[in-house]
Amino acid sequence: MTTGVRRRMGVEERRRQLIDVALELFGNRAPDEVSIDEIAAAAGISRPLVYHYFPGKQSLYEAALRRAADELSARFVEPREGPLGARLLRVMERFFDFVDQHGPGFSALMRGGPAAGSSTANAVIDGVRQSAYEQILTHLDVEVPSPRLELVVRSWVSLAESTALLWLDGRRVPREELEKQLVHDFAALTAVRAAYDAEMAGVMLRVLGQEPADGLFGELLERLSALTPAIPAVPVQRATDPRADTA
Amino acid sequence: MTTGVRRRMGVEERRRQLIDVALELFGNRAPDEVSIDEIAAAAGISRPLVYHYFPGKQSLYEAALRRAADELSARFVEPREGPLGARLLRVMERFFDFVDQHGPGFSALMRGGPAAGSSTANAVIDGVRQSAYEQILTHLDVEVPSPRLELVVRSWVSLAESTALLWLDGRRVPREELEKQLVHDFAALTAVRAAYDAEMAGVMLRVLGQEPADGLFGELLERLSALTPAIPAVPVQRATDPRADTA
Repeated sequence: MTTGVRRRMGVEERRRQLIDVALELFGNRAPDEVSIDEIAAAAGISRPLVYHYFPGKQSLYEAALRRAADELSARFVEPREGPLGARLLRVMERFFDFVDQHGPGFSALMRGGPAAGSSTANAVIDGVRQSAYEQILTHLDVEVPSPRLELVVRSWVSLAESTALLWLDGRRVPREELEKQLVHDFAALTAVRAAYDAEMAGVMLRVLGQEPADGLFGELLERLSALTPAIPAVPVQRATDPRADTA
Repeated sequence: MTTGVRRRMGVEERRRQLIDVALELFGNRAPDEVSIDEIAAAAGISRPLVYHYFPGKQSLYEAALRRAADELSARFVEPREGPLGARLLRVMERFFDFVDQHGPGFSALMRGGPAAGSSTANAVIDGVRQSAYEQILTHLDVEVPSPRLELVVRSWVSLAESTALLWLDGRRVPREELEKQLVHDFAALTAVRAAYDAEMAGVMLRVLGQEPADGLFGELLERLSALTPAIPAVPVQRATDPRADTA
């Protein structure tokens, strides 16, 4: 029995506290390495009391997962101001902050550990992907994307995910480098698609037109030009929309 | 009891037949929708006899998964002849053949269905990724990759995976387009990395130097140049290695 002056918490407050504790523990180790006893100890309550609020470890894990998912989704929200490259970079910085903070839990979940693979976990993960996808679309000023544009944006979200997982496995490349690289990757994947698709070309040229010459995308083009002497430095802001000629 | 002239199979032959049947069934539906009864019926044997060869559905599923994994890994093997773009395109064609053929099973597995998430399934999936990664490395003529090169190749393998999964969800873009796009994506991701990394720059310029002007990469550059008038058509074969100046 515990005694002393511990303040009594309300039901919601206690649930929130348990989720905080669980998120911290599940975020730092694989879920099957965390026990209810440990969660109880970290929360300073008895094991039976944990079960009073959550029927079992899986339900507590899922509650922590939902909280983490909400947090992660929120990091993809970015004001629609300034050049796209800078916006995406801020999003990637916040994304890697999250991955950094919840590394082992993120890894275990995304790589399909024992606690993953449940339909709830999959639905939560898909929810985050969907909200990241929708956020990026708003930055492209596209309301109804074509299947091709949808594919580019979704596959970039997935690239960010896999790049983060690869980074966690040894952290052999500085994360700042990867945050910037992913922004460049977005431009690169868009350019590949734009080469074959008028809608994507329109989106790309509109974005490039708003980009400062010394911005993230301009820097990339300049460096690529330096690599292959046949490509001169590209004045980004002079890019024009070829569809305008035929409109 | 079954009667008639059915030929008796040897143990290995029967196991192989059961795996064939299981692969066909698990490939076309999610694993939890396939029953042992159905496998027995499709193989023309009794349910108890299935259990004689495999202790349960999970072990039969894993055997089918291993077979599928071997098949898929084999599709990444490509002779080291001709331009890299054409090699990668053949690999992507075979990869999409596989995905096309085993669509629902591939989807269920990769998206973490009930049968996924087991440590065996994860190990098998990781094995395929690893062998795809090693195959691509041999085409780049790199024996000991830097962490950055490793990351580019592994994240491209992962991009191929996620692009295929997105394609399976509705098949709204012709697969031929995506096979080619993924080859271009490889070039694009490499170029982004090359802009900031001398090793990658070396690899990229070496590959470009072996590429015909009318090859896959040349076509991409030409189309991109047409989009942004500031970039003239790039004579691919004239690309030179800037490190040569300082060597």
